[in-house]
Amino acid sequence: MNAEIITIGDEILIGQIVDTNSQWIGQQLNKIGVSVYQISSIQDDKQHILNAFKEAQERVDIVIITGGLGPTKDDITKKTIAEFFNDDKVVEHPEVVEHIKGLFKRINYPFREVQRAQAQLPSKAILLMNNFGTAPGMWFYENETVFVSLPGVPYEMKGLITNEVLPRIQKQFKLPFILHKTIMTYGQGESMIAERIEDFENNLPTYIKLAYLPSFGRVRLRLSAKGENKEIIETALHEKVDELYQLIPEIITGLDDDSSLEKRVGVLLKKSNRTISTAESLTGGKIAATLVSIAGSSAYYKGSFVTYSAETKINLLGVSAETIKKYTVASKEVALEMARGAKEKLQTDCAIAVTGNAGPTTDHNDKSVGVVFIAFISDDKEIVQEFNFGQPREKVINRTVSKSLEILQKEIL
Amino acid sequence: MNAEIITIGDEILIGQIVDTNSQWIGQQLNKIGVSVYQISSIQDDKQHILNAFKEAQERVDIVIITGGLGPTKDDITKKTIAEFFNDDKVVEHPEVVEHIKGLFKRINYPFREVQRAQAQLPSKAILLMNNFGTAPGMWFYENETVFVSLPGVPYEMKGLITNEVLPRIQKQFKLPFILHKTIMTYGQGESMIAERIEDFENNLPTYIKLAYLPSFGRVRLRLSAKGENKEIIETALHEKVDELYQLIPEIITGLDDDSSLEKRVGVLLKKSNRTISTAESLTGGKIAATLVSIAGSSAYYKGSFVTYSAETKINLLGVSAETIKKYTVASKEVALEMARGAKEKLQTDCAIAVTGNAGPTTDHNDKSVGVVFIAFISDDKEIVQEFNFGQPREKVINRTVSKSLEILQKEIL
Repeated sequence: MNAEIITIGDEILIGQIVDTNSQWIGQQLNKIGVSVYQISSIQDDKQHILNAFKEAQERVDIVIITGGLGPTKDDITKKTIAEFFNDDKVVEHPEVVEHIKGLFKRINYPFREVQRAQAQLPSKAILLMNNFGTAPGMWFYENETVFVSLPGVPYEMKGLITNEVLPRIQKQFKLPFILHKTIMTYGQGESMIAERIEDFENNLPTYIKLAYLPSFGRVRLRLSAKGENKEIIETALHEKVDELYQLIPEIITGLDDDSSLEKRVGVLLKKSNRTISTAESLTGGKIAATLVSIAGSSAYYKGSFVTYSAETKINLLGVSAETIKKYTVASKEVALEMARGAKEKLQTDCAIAVTGNAGPTTDHNDKSVGVVFIAFISDDKEIVQEFNFGQPREKVINRTVSKSLEILQKEIL
Repeated sequence: MNAEIITIGDEILIGQIVDTNSQWIGQQLNKIGVSVYQISSIQDDKQHILNAFKEAQERVDIVIITGGLGPTKDDITKKTIAEFFNDDKVVEHPEVVEHIKGLFKRINYPFREVQRAQAQLPSKAILLMNNFGTAPGMWFYENETVFVSLPGVPYEMKGLITNEVLPRIQKQFKLPFILHKTIMTYGQGESMIAERIEDFENNLPTYIKLAYLPSFGRVRLRLSAKGENKEIIETALHEKVDELYQLIPEIITGLDDDSSLEKRVGVLLKKSNRTISTAESLTGGKIAATLVSIAGSSAYYKGSFVTYSAETKINLLGVSAETIKKYTVASKEVALEMARGAKEKLQTDCAIAVTGNAGPTTDHNDKSVGVVFIAFISDDKEIVQEFNFGQPREKVINRTVSKSLEILQKEIL
């Protein structure tokens, strides 16, 4: 069963927003056995929308449309869908009018007649109630293709997908089983790994696909399988993962959900009953935010200092002014003193600290851009390392976060 | 001049990664007068790629392809492009071999013969040197359509777009002028604003488009214009923006780049020569990261405490254990004491602190989910407010960040 996700609205095309909706929808569809064949972002323009619907209808069984359902004039999706289905009858759904009135009453807004239009749907549409907002979703089934139209506001769309769309798809179609296993590796490049597992790759059965996903010093290997029989798929993928663990044992750090370093670090800290704190300069809180993103992190994560200036490094973390004067703020010595400060102030078992220069700079000869110092300390160990992550700024910050977690994992193992 | 962006790779379709490349490319193309007509994410499959190329060729003048250029087997883009252009001759580019050898030498990796394939391009391709990675970009021009193929690694893609692709497009085509103006508003819904500016909208000239972009309690109004004459476009949009400022003065907070609250806050703090610190609980550093994302923020932003546990609120910020016992950690009183702690410890002119319950919870009757307290203090003022941001968790966290910046802006104005 194949699906296409169509997002309507110029804001994605001109780069005003990032399309995170499609990613989330893709994940949810995969979980119930629907493959996403294509994602298309198109303009808020009648003819363009009609063309995209027609193309999608030829390609896939399920078309999920997001965006373009607000009360204002720039939203023409609903009219265009009605035209696409040759449906010139409009039906008003009183339960939607009541729901909108209730929503507005709660925040003390007056109900406006312009809002009533949101309760009016093409007659061929099955109403999907939107509990989190004013624009309802719509479900159409014609010529053996499902068309679903949803508002673009992320949490409204998510509610509708979870409560309405997925159960209806599962009822409508007989779905296969799709499984992905992602193995995280560190320290070797894509081509070197490919050479090491060449035979493995050549001997994969046709229903299992292997993909390489390199990013910032890591390569993820994704095995994907699809079939009727859940048990066969699971067993086959399990065996293939085991084979990979035999072939490249020393570079594998984890699998699937556990393969994210922040999860691994969390599991290890919990298991060993240890706590951690962080002190960050150039990463501005990003290491903290990454650690906190894991549910249950409060068990081991105590807090963070974001010390952007030399002054706060001194006042908050107790870094010595002399050390800064002698070695500059971006130095091994300062990284170490920052880590010691965080560990002591937050009374944790270990601490990680980073300082460095993420750039950019107007001085093209400035060799310090990209140079980063990462310190890790625990009760019985103090280590500090220097890295050069080059440029641009985005890469330096991301690699600093990723390398810090890598060091953390290694040290608490 | 219209463009289509095609991203190749299952990782976007199964929701493993978010497609941020297309957003960035969309912004860059718009700046030089190229409209993005469509963005398509497709599978790593020969026939699918060929179909997408053909469709795009019929729709647009410029096709930008990212992804699928690595050294391993799952990357079939290059072969498929060669087939699309009926080009069965391969040319090896020695400068690329030298470049790859140099890159590998720097990180002490051996050069592998499998890498040589990356230097081999279809004979019709114009080489685009990739200074940040091993896979070069390619430029094709046939039947009055430009096809550009780029690696998917973001900083490699960005380097190639900036240094190679944009200058070549500007040389190849006569481009119009595109201008967007975005006006940020607060406190009124999409439909209410639409009613207030109905006449304005109906009288817009055909070359100016208006779009409403609602999100988390803000509505952005975007005016877009396109034409040959830069001066006419600029004057016309300028006038329309002025008209909007007349029509809905009290809900507008800013324009374009200034319209991001973090930028506005930065400008205001710099102008008034004041400094700020933050203390965060449920947002886990996200307010800090938002403030730090502005270049030059070190002038006014001194640092942040991420105090996730009651214990760290007490130890780091000096919140009283009694206050927590009496009112719970999620209370007005604790928010205020957190702000006082941050202001004092970091010696800033003002401070903002947040505490609350972002959820989720297993207790469906838990009324505290979504309740958030935000405190702002300065030398002469202490205010604290209670909000209910409902659910889900993502919405609560984002609205807390956005509301904190809104309060900050209002108070430092």
